[in-house]
Formats: sequence, C-alpha cells, structure tokens
Amino acid sequence: MINETYKQMLQKKSVIRQLSEFATERGKEIGYENVFDYSLGNPSVPVPKEFNDNLKDMLDNMSSMELHGYSPSVGLPSVKESIANDLNKRFGMNYKKEHIFPTSGAAGAVAHAVRCVTSPGDEVLTFAPYFPEYDPYINTSGAVLKVVKADTKTFQINFDELDKMMNEKVAAVLINTPNNPSGIVYNTKTIERLSSYLKDKQKEYGHDIFILSDEPYREIVFEGVDAPYVSKYYDNTLSCYSYSKSLSVPGERIGYVAANPACTDADLISAICAQISRGIGHNCPSSLMQYGVASVHDLTSDMSVYETNMNILYNELTSLGFEVIKPGGTFYIFPKALEDDAVAFCNKALDYDLVLVPSDSFGVKGYFRMAYCIDTEKVERSLVALRKFVKECYGR
Amino acid sequence: MINETYKQMLQKKSVIRQLSEFATERGKEIGYENVFDYSLGNPSVPVPKEFNDNLKDMLDNMSSMELHGYSPSVGLPSVKESIANDLNKRFGMNYKKEHIFPTSGAAGAVAHAVRCVTSPGDEVLTFAPYFPEYDPYINTSGAVLKVVKADTKTFQINFDELDKMMNEKVAAVLINTPNNPSGIVYNTKTIERLSSYLKDKQKEYGHDIFILSDEPYREIVFEGVDAPYVSKYYDNTLSCYSYSKSLSVPGERIGYVAANPACTDADLISAICAQISRGIGHNCPSSLMQYGVASVHDLTSDMSVYETNMNILYNELTSLGFEVIKPGGTFYIFPKALEDDAVAFCNKALDYDLVLVPSDSFGVKGYFRMAYCIDTEKVERSLVALRKFVKECYGR
Repeated sequence: MINETYKQMLQKKSVIRQLSEFATERGKEIGYENVFDYSLGNPSVPVPKEFNDNLKDMLDNMSSMELHGYSPSVGLPSVKESIANDLNKRFGMNYKKEHIFPTSGAAGAVAHAVRCVTSPGDEVLTFAPYFPEYDPYINTSGAVLKVVKADTKTFQINFDELDKMMNEKVAAVLINTPNNPSGIVYNTKTIERLSSYLKDKQKEYGHDIFILSDEPYREIVFEGVDAPYVSKYYDNTLSCYSYSKSLSVPGERIGYVAANPACTDADLISAICAQISRGIGHNCPSSLMQYGVASVHDLTSDMSVYETNMNILYNELTSLGFEVIKPGGTFYIFPKALEDDAVAFCNKALDYDLVLVPSDSFGVKGYFRMAYCIDTEKVERSLVALRKFVKECYGR
Repeated sequence: MINETYKQMLQKKSVIRQLSEFATERGKEIGYENVFDYSLGNPSVPVPKEFNDNLKDMLDNMSSMELHGYSPSVGLPSVKESIANDLNKRFGMNYKKEHIFPTSGAAGAVAHAVRCVTSPGDEVLTFAPYFPEYDPYINTSGAVLKVVKADTKTFQINFDELDKMMNEKVAAVLINTPNNPSGIVYNTKTIERLSSYLKDKQKEYGHDIFILSDEPYREIVFEGVDAPYVSKYYDNTLSCYSYSKSLSVPGERIGYVAANPACTDADLISAICAQISRGIGHNCPSSLMQYGVASVHDLTSDMSVYETNMNILYNELTSLGFEVIKPGGTFYIFPKALEDDAVAFCNKALDYDLVLVPSDSFGVKGYFRMAYCIDTEKVERSLVALRKFVKECYGR
C-alpha cells in the first residue's frame, strides 16, 4: 500500500514553490517580464564558459569507460583530491581526499551529514530564520530539528536562546552562512563564540556536538564583509557545499561534504556517507559533473549582478522606511513587513505583481524574503510597483 | 556522535568489490590484461557516439539557465514525456509523463519504489539468486527483505516456495529480469503465473501487492528469447529502469521509475518519489543527463559482444562438464561450482588468475557468477586458464 507518511508530505506544499507557480501563471497573462518575481533562488547568470568547454573536451577526449563508468561510491579519487587541494589553498586547511564526499548539491550534503553524526531521537539545533527544507532533511532521518529564536537586531546567532535550547540530546548544530533568507554573514566574533560555547558543551556532556555548516552561498560575499571559514574554528565541523550558486548549475546536483581532518572519525565520514547513499540507491553525483566542477576550481559565474541588485533594493527599501539589515552576501534580502502579518502583506503585494515570500516558513514572523537573482533592469522596474504598493496600502 | 548503524555497514564489504580490488592489485603485478577479471558488471562497450554529440550540442546551443537550471523535483517534463512516449510505442503501454520519475539509475529507482509502496514492518519478497544490494535498499527503508528459494533447475520463479513465504505482511514482490546473477529471463508463462497468483492474493488479503520490476538489463536480451514487458501483465507494477547498461553510462546515475497507469494512486507515485528524494536532499538526476538520455531513445551501445562472449563461455563450460543454464540476457552466467563450497572453488580459481564470484551473497550456495562484460579476446584467452584450473583441481 502507498506509504502514508510520504503521501501526507504532498499536502504540505512549499510556499516558495506555490508563489513561483503563481508568478509563472501570472506571466502567461501579462508577460513574465511584467511579473516582479522575487520568489525563487534560481541563479540568473550563466555558467562560466570554461565549464561547458571543459565538459565538451572531456566528451571528445576521455575514454567512454573512464568518463561515464562507475565512480567509486565515495566519489572519484582525482576529483576528491582536487577539491581538498583547493580548500587547503584558499582556507589554510589540511584536507586529504579521504575527507571529501561528493554529493547532489548542498541539500544532499546536509542530508548525508545529519545522518552521519546523529542517531534517531537526537536533536539538531538550527537558527531562525532558516531554510525550510531543513525540516525534511532532518525529520526523515529520525533526528529532530529544533529552531533557536532569531536575534532580529542583527540576524547573527542569538546565544541566550541557544543556551536555553541546549541539552544533552543535541548531537549537531546546523548553521547557514551566508544565510538564506536573511542574506547575513556570520562574522568571526559569532563563529568564535559559537565554537567556544560548543567546546564547553562537548566537555560538559562528554560527547561530540558537530557543526554542520551549510555553505552554498560561500562564494557570494559582498565587498568588505567578514566571512570566516567555519571549519577553521571548530574541529568537529562538516562543511556542506554546493556548486549550484557559484557556477549556476543547480540542476546538475553537485556539491560535497568536507569533514574537518581533526573531527571524530574524520577518515570514516566519507565512507559512512557512501553507506547512507547506498541505502537510497543514489551512490554518486554524475561522473561527468564530478570531473566538470573539479576542472574549474578557480572560477565562478560572474555574480557581480547580485551585489548591484542588493544595493538598489537596500537603498530603496530603506528610503521607503522599511526596517532592513544590509545583506553581506547571497542573493536574498529580508526586510520587516509593514504589518505584523507577513502573509497578508505579501498577498497584498501580489496585486502589484510583486512576488515576495512571507517569513513564516523561515521560522520568524513579520518579515519577507526577496530573491534578487533577476536582471538588474527588472529590479529597477520593480521599484515603481514597490512604491505604488507601499503608498496605496500603507500610506507611505 | 557518529551513527553506529551506518558505521557497522562499513564492516560488511561487498564480496564483489573485494574481488574486483584483488583483480586490480594482481593486475599491478602481472599486467591487468593477464587477470581474467569476471567480477564486476561494468559495461565494456562505449556509449553511442550520438549521446556525447547530443550533450555537446546542448552545451553549445541551449541557454545555461534552461540546461543547468533547477529541474522540478519530479523531473523535467519534456524528458518524462519523451520516456513515456518511447515506452508506449515499444511496449503498447499508455504512460503519461506523470507516471515517470527520473532517478539515479535502477538502484535509485528500486530504493524509491520500495519506500513508495511499503510502510515500516512490511515485507518485500524477492527470489534467489538475487542482487545483494537489495538488502541495503530495502532494509534501510523500514521494510524487511525476505528471499524465496531458487528453482535451480530453471532459475525461473519457484512458485511452491513463493506460496510458503506469502503472508498478509507482504506489500511488494521484487523481481529482476533479465536476472543478475543468473542471466535468465523470466518467460511469459512465469510472468502470467506470477500475475495471476498475486491478483488472487490481493483479493484474499484485501490490499495491494506491488510488483517492483528491476529492469536494468531490459535491452540485453539474446536472440530468440521470450522477454515479456512485466508491467503489461499486472496493473500494480512499478518498473525500475537504468540507462547504465544499455548506454554504458553507469557513472552518470540515470534511470527512472515508470508507474503502470492502472496501478493504485498511479498519478501520485512520481510526486511521492519526489518527497522521498527530498528527504535525502537528492532531488533529481543531473539535468544534462536527463536531457541526454531523452535524446537517444532509439539507441543503445553496440552490445553484441555480450552474446558472443556468452556463447563462447557457455560452450566451453558445458564441454568441461559444468552444470549451467544458458543465459537469455545480461552479461552474466551462473554455473554450478565443481564442489559444494563455492567460496573454496572461487578461491582456488584465483591461483589461475580467474576472478569468479561465489554465489553465497546472491542467496544460493554452490554456484558462481562470471560477468563477461570484457573483451572477447580476453574471454578466449581465459579458456586456457579455465581448462588448467578444472584439470588440476578437479581432474576433469
């Protein structure tokens, strides 16, 4: 008989997906260029030309069996080694290939990392505002996701609230910096404090507490922003990366888990992840894609448009009187809504063809997210609609 | 703390993998061309040139966002439609795109299909000899795999044994035809009898019993062999396919689940599979690979070498006095060992640089598997070693 648990998951449709579908439908009526669709975090800049060129080269020159043949379930050795070397060079780490496990994006990385360091019944703490897909990644593993209240003044970590939630059952703390949805980057002070706090708690409880560091936006950090590499500050760290945003290849499902070489069972993490993948029949990401990302370590897509868009929106929102913290990275901004009910606020915005995502599903009330991974020209045109909306609905 | 369940899975290393590693090591000593490595089912013929050419075309001509952008979690609509149309044309089915869920190979397909139609505690029956990876696919889902004894006279289904194992807890029956490891294809009589038996049991128990039809070798069927399309005979069928063998792309991790349009909740299967994938963060196969396989429906690699190799081995084994059933497809043959202990038999063969896989992990004792997806020239050279081995160890 059809599994009822999964069937019921179908009922809880993602708000973001629903809004994105609304935008597509509305686009059919008035032209999609006239819908100011800030719903979806889908990169809007092309892949680096070198990436496609390298794939074509491999298709021409590598033997079919080498290129398309089985990858070991822990990933292709040369790819793992090349990722380790790149991280070592950039962040002063000492990863070896054994510490790298290629995954289907950061989603796969987080879902595997959680299963690796928790047992059923364990708790995983994350911080509001948070990416709502953490719910399925963690709650289908047998562990339980608990959300620490936001520090809405800074969207850095709220340590008082963290301390209230901390208990012996906590096996991991899941952070996301640069952050979806707030756009905020945790600064060195925050990471140092978190590290020191968790070291104390590990001692107190006599067991590991891992940091799962979800880093798909690692390469989208704006000028002058302090963006520490989390794993440098805390041994028990599993870094979860995706090439989706940095190379604009979200459909190719490629990223990795990097286990800090000093973490507990560091040399086993990759092999354990392979066992997790084995159970679901997934095994590895596409071998062509593994070779592809390893061939362009020094490159990203041209992501300057995101900072340009951020500045335009931040200035406009501020001048319209929105309470908003300036993002340090990503392609999201997270202003306070002009009424307490963010859902009502976003519904009204739809009348102006502004597609904004209410903050409720991110674990805080009263805010909204704009994903500004769209053309700058459209961002500029959207300001007219934004002003009209704010004036007509809120008299500003 | 590191998850103990997954950590313990590391201890149970696959016998096939161990033998394959032995072959690689031995190859370093005497040259790999001198190791008669029949261990691994890794396709030995190249991908069709058109497949690579089409990928290159797409990399040149499709927009980056269309090609590399997010695929819906149920798969790319045009790809699903094209797979449905191809199956309809070839097998007289009436699939719509809603019934197709792209997966990472048949492994992903089986693992998803099982989770879709079982709940924890349910039983899944399969038939010896069987592919040992079914253990992790099913036992990590909460359902329980039970193995029905083989009919060693034909390696078709042993219906008496099936009837002994059948009970109300059985939610699915997992079959694999053409079969790994026996190479046998279930004939129309077998499939009709299974269908009729399960229909009766569904009525008796008042609940669905699904057939999960694992079909990665569907396109490798030898001349004149009766190879029915299982789903035509039984409504509650989920067909699990992979392009790994037919296109020689096992590293690209691409296949699908096809839900019979008349099965229970047929229109939901794909969406439920997407929820299963969501929990593990996998989502879809690579979008480039989805487009790629959809572009070559009429093609397979040139797989004639497998039938050539089978005939050479079958004739030699028979003339050496082995008890062996002639394979109807795949690139496996499954003779009876020359002593009761197949592990001892295969260990002795290693002294002749013949790498054979004992049948124990396939759920029957006393047989061995040869994966003859290797060059014909090497098969021919291996006969000398085989004759020497049989003569010296068993006096034949």
